[in-house]
Amino acid sequence: MSHKYNVSCPSGFPEWTPAQERVQQDWIRVITEVFEANGFMPITTPMVEREENLVAKGGDPKEVYVLKRLLDEDGDTSHSGNALRFDHTVPLALYVARHLNDIAFPFKRYSIGPVFRGERAQKGRYRQFTQCDIDVIGSGEVSLLNDAQMVAIIVQIFERLNIGKFKVRINNRKILTGLFRSLGVDAGKIKSTLDHIDDLEKIGLKKVTEALTKDGLTNAQVKAIVDFTKISGRNDDILAQLEEHVSGEEYEEGVRSLKMVVDGLRSMDISNEQCQVDLAIARGLDYYTGTVYETNLLNEKGDINTSLGSICSGGRYDDLAEIFTGKKLPGVGISIGLTRLLAQLFDAGIVKTDRSSPTDVLVIAMSSDVLSQALEIGTKIRGFGYKTENYLENKKVGKQFDYANKLGIPVCVVIGEDEVKNGDEVQRKDMRDGQQRKVKISDLQNDLDALLC
Amino acid sequence: MSHKYNVSCPSGFPEWTPAQERVQQDWIRVITEVFEANGFMPITTPMVEREENLVAKGGDPKEVYVLKRLLDEDGDTSHSGNALRFDHTVPLALYVARHLNDIAFPFKRYSIGPVFRGERAQKGRYRQFTQCDIDVIGSGEVSLLNDAQMVAIIVQIFERLNIGKFKVRINNRKILTGLFRSLGVDAGKIKSTLDHIDDLEKIGLKKVTEALTKDGLTNAQVKAIVDFTKISGRNDDILAQLEEHVSGEEYEEGVRSLKMVVDGLRSMDISNEQCQVDLAIARGLDYYTGTVYETNLLNEKGDINTSLGSICSGGRYDDLAEIFTGKKLPGVGISIGLTRLLAQLFDAGIVKTDRSSPTDVLVIAMSSDVLSQALEIGTKIRGFGYKTENYLENKKVGKQFDYANKLGIPVCVVIGEDEVKNGDEVQRKDMRDGQQRKVKISDLQNDLDALLC
Repeated sequence: MSHKYNVSCPSGFPEWTPAQERVQQDWIRVITEVFEANGFMPITTPMVEREENLVAKGGDPKEVYVLKRLLDEDGDTSHSGNALRFDHTVPLALYVARHLNDIAFPFKRYSIGPVFRGERAQKGRYRQFTQCDIDVIGSGEVSLLNDAQMVAIIVQIFERLNIGKFKVRINNRKILTGLFRSLGVDAGKIKSTLDHIDDLEKIGLKKVTEALTKDGLTNAQVKAIVDFTKISGRNDDILAQLEEHVSGEEYEEGVRSLKMVVDGLRSMDISNEQCQVDLAIARGLDYYTGTVYETNLLNEKGDINTSLGSICSGGRYDDLAEIFTGKKLPGVGISIGLTRLLAQLFDAGIVKTDRSSPTDVLVIAMSSDVLSQALEIGTKIRGFGYKTENYLENKKVGKQFDYANKLGIPVCVVIGEDEVKNGDEVQRKDMRDGQQRKVKISDLQNDLDALLC
Repeated sequence: MSHKYNVSCPSGFPEWTPAQERVQQDWIRVITEVFEANGFMPITTPMVEREENLVAKGGDPKEVYVLKRLLDEDGDTSHSGNALRFDHTVPLALYVARHLNDIAFPFKRYSIGPVFRGERAQKGRYRQFTQCDIDVIGSGEVSLLNDAQMVAIIVQIFERLNIGKFKVRINNRKILTGLFRSLGVDAGKIKSTLDHIDDLEKIGLKKVTEALTKDGLTNAQVKAIVDFTKISGRNDDILAQLEEHVSGEEYEEGVRSLKMVVDGLRSMDISNEQCQVDLAIARGLDYYTGTVYETNLLNEKGDINTSLGSICSGGRYDDLAEIFTGKKLPGVGISIGLTRLLAQLFDAGIVKTDRSSPTDVLVIAMSSDVLSQALEIGTKIRGFGYKTENYLENKKVGKQFDYANKLGIPVCVVIGEDEVKNGDEVQRKDMRDGQQRKVKISDLQNDLDALLC
């Protein structure tokens, strides 16, 4: 009796269908093209780094996967001191530390690939997921125009991905933290106050007010903060209102920075509809010290689609890698959580996954006697630029059509004895409407162009 | 005093430079396009599978990396029962087992991505490396024309990658094993005899003869085998000679199969120069049961470049996943060991890595007063289809040119006060020859086309 294997994917390690994977590859291609169109360089760091370095930059020991060999040569099965990366930021910091003297600053790089976290598996949480990151790192400083450029890149990407209307929302954390301080919020509560503001859209005003109050903020502080986050209008109106507020140096620096970014957006032809200042955007990560971004799809009314969460987020940070480099390296970056985002879009039916195969044209031989001619026609059609597959198994024509239907192949070209005898024509079937007709080989390219372009 | 971190890459986990990574991405793009042009579907299985399944299909416990969390929530630091994949074949077998009822056979898939082996680190051996695999899996059987198609795909890939002349060499293992049996080689020595033949090109005839003799083969057997592997000529001549030999059923089946593949190559317009039958090709893996392939670059004289080894190999197998599926699923596939191959080509200077940045055009502002205009010009040039980067930092023009030179950016466009005043022209500098001239903005696209196309 044979051993029974459990062949399912380990929990938290997802596997796309071919149709889903084709969408993912298409997205990665578009994202890569936009990153490169803006002059960003590809960096692919190893999946594996020294455990010590990952933990030093915030890796949660409960989530970091370390590697050990199933059986070490000396019988030692302790781990190797190496672990799987949990994001692209720590590897970026290590890359910069490794190559500090060779890098031309500002260093503009992108990284696309899987990262690993040993999280408790649950819906929407993965243990392996693909992140698409882009960052600009400066030596000493890096212009605020880079913060504006991040928005331009987000806009270019999601316009090309064609998943409906979206909006980038932008803020500067110093505006919020400066405000909190000027309102007398305890230094020790600045971080948790930011986190509560970040929850506004998720859990609503009432719960956030309760949480802030529970944290010990006075009613007056809570009211001032909540009212502040509600300031709305066009970007220039908001900035004008912000400039009237007097809330200390940190706040003012935040407002000046945000204004420079908004001015940059104008020079880059980014409209107020594409990028809106929103003072309630805070972001969870400790890491960010200036500009912060979120991007959301809009519903039919033009409001934020809150069910999907942010589809691209990021921000500015003061310190990428001082512990590794001894140098001040500020930066700004954004990240697309591709696995999670696509899973949501597949679930919501926003992205279609109806074609498993890339094949445009399946070439069918009616009998094995004409396979050789079918191969020649296949080579010819591939030469037209169409993804072309010859059905090579010795099966009845009906089975071959079934195969095309099952994979979503749109067009079949059929070669039979008659066609070979005549020598100059084939049968062509559009699988989408079932229409079949004879086409002269000399007309085949035009015929396929009309069907497939 | 700050802690000193070792930021180097863990041993065996390589990191490309951006210039090398750009080549790798370009190769992956070409390989993907050819796989898809022939109708193969993308499958991306998780990097992580159940340890038991990996070991069941040949994973060496000394090389399989298992995962454990650095600190489990309950303090248990034993491993999770999951491990990193060591090739794409076992994940393919598991994928087929997972989706057996949904798959349209013949199942044609490709997988491109990293795999992991805890090998002893040494030059040319990596613990993480990228493999590009393509396989056709049949239900019950799969046509020998697929074996020919693999050759067509290898030819399409390496012609496009443009790394010089190459040759695919092909054989059928049954011809060798049938011959060995008919010569009276012990059943227990068939495998080691194959392995010795596989070493012929690497260690030479003398050493292989010694090894075969040491294994207990008679002088007559060794001579017959060695003479057989030397049979040469054009493919049809070799086949004619093979058909004259009488060596039993297994041998004859091998010859018939090889003939069908060679006939298929002819229908696919693959020339004898592109694919040569070579009876000394054996391949190491136990796994293969029929057609086997190697691909080599040729030196200036047109001979095999033996210093590089095979750049793409593969073969036919009878059983992909019977232990997981209970079904007979034969297949044929090829694999490109991308990391190892590129490392060799970089070392040998066969592939150039002189451009770190994808940027075609760097737009330089002579002062921060004209940055806004420079951004507008940048957007315009990006619209022409060129990868365009604005230098956004407030630095002297000389520093900006240095940046372009360091990254290998071929063209700079410079915006100064004069250009803004005139409003209709820019300075354009070709960084490769240092030529600089004024260009009207209305002529800029033609000018850049002439420089960059």
